[in-house]
Amino acid sequence: MHRAAFRDPTSAQYSAVTTSCVSLNRYYEYMFGSSKRQQLNKRRRTGPSELTELQVLITSPDSDCDGYPSVTSDESCESPLFLYLLYFYRICLETFSQLVFEDDYGAKSVNATQISDFPRFAHRGILLDTSRHYLPIKVILANLETMAMNKINVFHWHIVDDQSFPYLSRTFPQLSQQGAYHPYTHVYTPADVKMVIEFARLRGIRVIPEFDTPGHTQSWGKGQKDLLTPCYSGATPSGTFGPVNPILNTTYDFMSQFFKEISTVFPDAYVHLGGDEVDFNCWKSNPDIQKFMAQQGFGQDFSKLESFYIQRLLNIVTSTKKGYMIWQEVFDNGVKLKPDTIIHVWKGTQLQYQNEMANVTSAGYQTLLSTPWYLNRISYGQDWRGHYKADPQDFNGTDEQKKLVVGGEACLWGEYVDATNLTPRLWPRASAVAERLWSAKDVTDINDAFNRLSVHRCRMVERGIPAEPLFSSFCPREYKGL
Amino acid sequence: MHRAAFRDPTSAQYSAVTTSCVSLNRYYEYMFGSSKRQQLNKRRRTGPSELTELQVLITSPDSDCDGYPSVTSDESCESPLFLYLLYFYRICLETFSQLVFEDDYGAKSVNATQISDFPRFAHRGILLDTSRHYLPIKVILANLETMAMNKINVFHWHIVDDQSFPYLSRTFPQLSQQGAYHPYTHVYTPADVKMVIEFARLRGIRVIPEFDTPGHTQSWGKGQKDLLTPCYSGATPSGTFGPVNPILNTTYDFMSQFFKEISTVFPDAYVHLGGDEVDFNCWKSNPDIQKFMAQQGFGQDFSKLESFYIQRLLNIVTSTKKGYMIWQEVFDNGVKLKPDTIIHVWKGTQLQYQNEMANVTSAGYQTLLSTPWYLNRISYGQDWRGHYKADPQDFNGTDEQKKLVVGGEACLWGEYVDATNLTPRLWPRASAVAERLWSAKDVTDINDAFNRLSVHRCRMVERGIPAEPLFSSFCPREYKGL
Repeated sequence: MHRAAFRDPTSAQYSAVTTSCVSLNRYYEYMFGSSKRQQLNKRRRTGPSELTELQVLITSPDSDCDGYPSVTSDESCESPLFLYLLYFYRICLETFSQLVFEDDYGAKSVNATQISDFPRFAHRGILLDTSRHYLPIKVILANLETMAMNKINVFHWHIVDDQSFPYLSRTFPQLSQQGAYHPYTHVYTPADVKMVIEFARLRGIRVIPEFDTPGHTQSWGKGQKDLLTPCYSGATPSGTFGPVNPILNTTYDFMSQFFKEISTVFPDAYVHLGGDEVDFNCWKSNPDIQKFMAQQGFGQDFSKLESFYIQRLLNIVTSTKKGYMIWQEVFDNGVKLKPDTIIHVWKGTQLQYQNEMANVTSAGYQTLLSTPWYLNRISYGQDWRGHYKADPQDFNGTDEQKKLVVGGEACLWGEYVDATNLTPRLWPRASAVAERLWSAKDVTDINDAFNRLSVHRCRMVERGIPAEPLFSSFCPREYKGL
Repeated sequence: MHRAAFRDPTSAQYSAVTTSCVSLNRYYEYMFGSSKRQQLNKRRRTGPSELTELQVLITSPDSDCDGYPSVTSDESCESPLFLYLLYFYRICLETFSQLVFEDDYGAKSVNATQISDFPRFAHRGILLDTSRHYLPIKVILANLETMAMNKINVFHWHIVDDQSFPYLSRTFPQLSQQGAYHPYTHVYTPADVKMVIEFARLRGIRVIPEFDTPGHTQSWGKGQKDLLTPCYSGATPSGTFGPVNPILNTTYDFMSQFFKEISTVFPDAYVHLGGDEVDFNCWKSNPDIQKFMAQQGFGQDFSKLESFYIQRLLNIVTSTKKGYMIWQEVFDNGVKLKPDTIIHVWKGTQLQYQNEMANVTSAGYQTLLSTPWYLNRISYGQDWRGHYKADPQDFNGTDEQKKLVVGGEACLWGEYVDATNLTPRLWPRASAVAERLWSAKDVTDINDAFNRLSVHRCRMVERGIPAEPLFSSFCPREYKGL
């Protein structure tokens, strides 16, 4: 029986299991509605057709279920499901809830089935961007909940960028005080961040924060003097600023303190360090930078200066006992990386990203694909079909190389997205990516996927998530909000 | 002072007035919040800086304000606004509410200003499609409310189509019983329709229903035997059906009864009769149709058969004392039309639709433009700029011809849109169209429009409407839903 991140319980194909540490109550409501719980508890005697037992055998119990999920968490689950059950806890609930269907009279049933299932890739992520637009905590939590419904297990939190710095740092509170859209209403306090991490942990989702440097840092400069490079217009400073200034010791002092804080606030073993799209024009204009370039013998190759900075940053982060992920440019520039580094591929055409995946794995590094899954790029029609067809292991390479592909991430960059439109834009388009990353390589029947995805989209709608339609259709119970 | 459908009260440019018959209470809350009303009523004495008076002079009072709005309703309004007021009723409230701004301490103010304003076009519409996806009444009402915020005065209700027939007809209840997605949960009852019309009327919005025939009628055929043409595969019926069967008297009997009902249910003087995209293949396959074609001397020109049908339909609708709007194909096919017919242009490239507008007006007909405003067609980035630049009078023609342009409509077809994503997809993109149709021809500064539209988008968000962002930005109070 094939694996899938979402399923249609009335079809012949059953699939998909999650081992997220989730709570029963929530799923009880998803399956049976909130009103029926009391009624069922009261009932002492159950007829032969009522759900009384679910046996779940975990072949490789994850002893770490009360801890934080990690890239090595065992997510497999073998569960001979016998019909009839009343109570069980925390494991396979999402899958089981997807087996429940309702007949025309409102009765809930489950077909007898046996599932043996596990994910294809260990890293199945979604990137949300809280810098171009601030996302209220409510929106983040609702989408974590929806990630769990889709067996997504990584929330890549692109928390700050040029436009705003909503992360409230205990060590450097001026960063958000000056750099957020608003210092009180548009920030993530330590309590907010803790809540997000805990909410995610309870759903088996890792939270990997991204603090992208040396580019994409305009908002950092507002609250941290001398962090950014002063740009020059001729012989005088123009008043504008470029990337992080890589030639000052104060820069590295700041980064040491900052990433020390980050390493304690975010429990995941990895932090994403960015490193993409560094604009060299400001560095080129600055006489002090030019002087430094000459001293170092970099000539006019500013990618060497970028690598100089990144190298020192990586050493700082390594000293905090964290692994790191970086965007592909850092690898492309030849920076020396730790063996456990994950190279995040995001650029180019299909041919180009496949070549990049081949190069990265040929160098022995782990990699993660996002290029085909930029969900912020919208177009008319069913673009999920393209997302569904992309396969992160589809490049020229050995089996050893293919094993270095840890998974992928759907990215929803925030230029045109905020609380008003994020959720329907993300779902169910990200569900197509979720299945590609969960299911077996040979699960590629797109018509079957369309049917299951349609059912799953109405399931999300019924659970209160405004997941948009795939095409002309209806849900038995339409979305009740706006 | 220029005219605009929305404005930024803190900028130097004031504009835009509506004369919609709207209620004070709603606008009171929009302007001052619901909590302050009681407090203000209690206060007997007001200081000199408090709002105590608003003088509004209507130069041409619309005596029809308690009736239904119509294409000839006078929407002009001259209002010497003096600061300081407490109470007035129904007129210019949207405009006035847009003049209110809040300082950093929460105090509300209005700059002293004088407005003399009126719309450029009488017909400023939005088409919503409730057939590809059923839209809950709540969604329709919320969008009518938002239309009023944008001075849109026509709701073109594309209520039925191939996919479903949600209109519950008293005369032919089988149409929705069989043709709706669900006969009870996915229909618009007579009470629902009445509520929509009344809710719209109170906001100065006309409701023009569209019952599109002879194509786009698959859902009609489920509940009305022999209405559609049986398609043939060779010499035998294939079991599928084509457009409305134009050769049976029963068809016209049905249409007479049906449109008699429609003429009483919908008070507007116009009904939209569709007439677009008729597929001739089924007609071609049917031997009875072939025989009829020969009898009538139509040869193989099926557009003559289409015109034969439409001509009889138009006569039927005329007998109900309604005017009609039709899609451009009906005009293109040379059907004889009443002089007050409005030809709705929706096809082609810019050059093609401009030629069509020239041809239609040169023939002396009124016209309405939608081609550049198909808001269902989404793309990455700020497509509102293209919508804003299109001008319905921008074609080669005399002044007399230009006067025949009654306005335009933004269309949000429903294949990929339902309650989950309709509202943010419509707003503020439709606001750009709203301003093009309201403001003077020379209001074309796109940077000014961006700034005012950004303010207006946050105004809609604050009023509870999930209007999506134009670009990286924030609203003082972000959307509180999902």
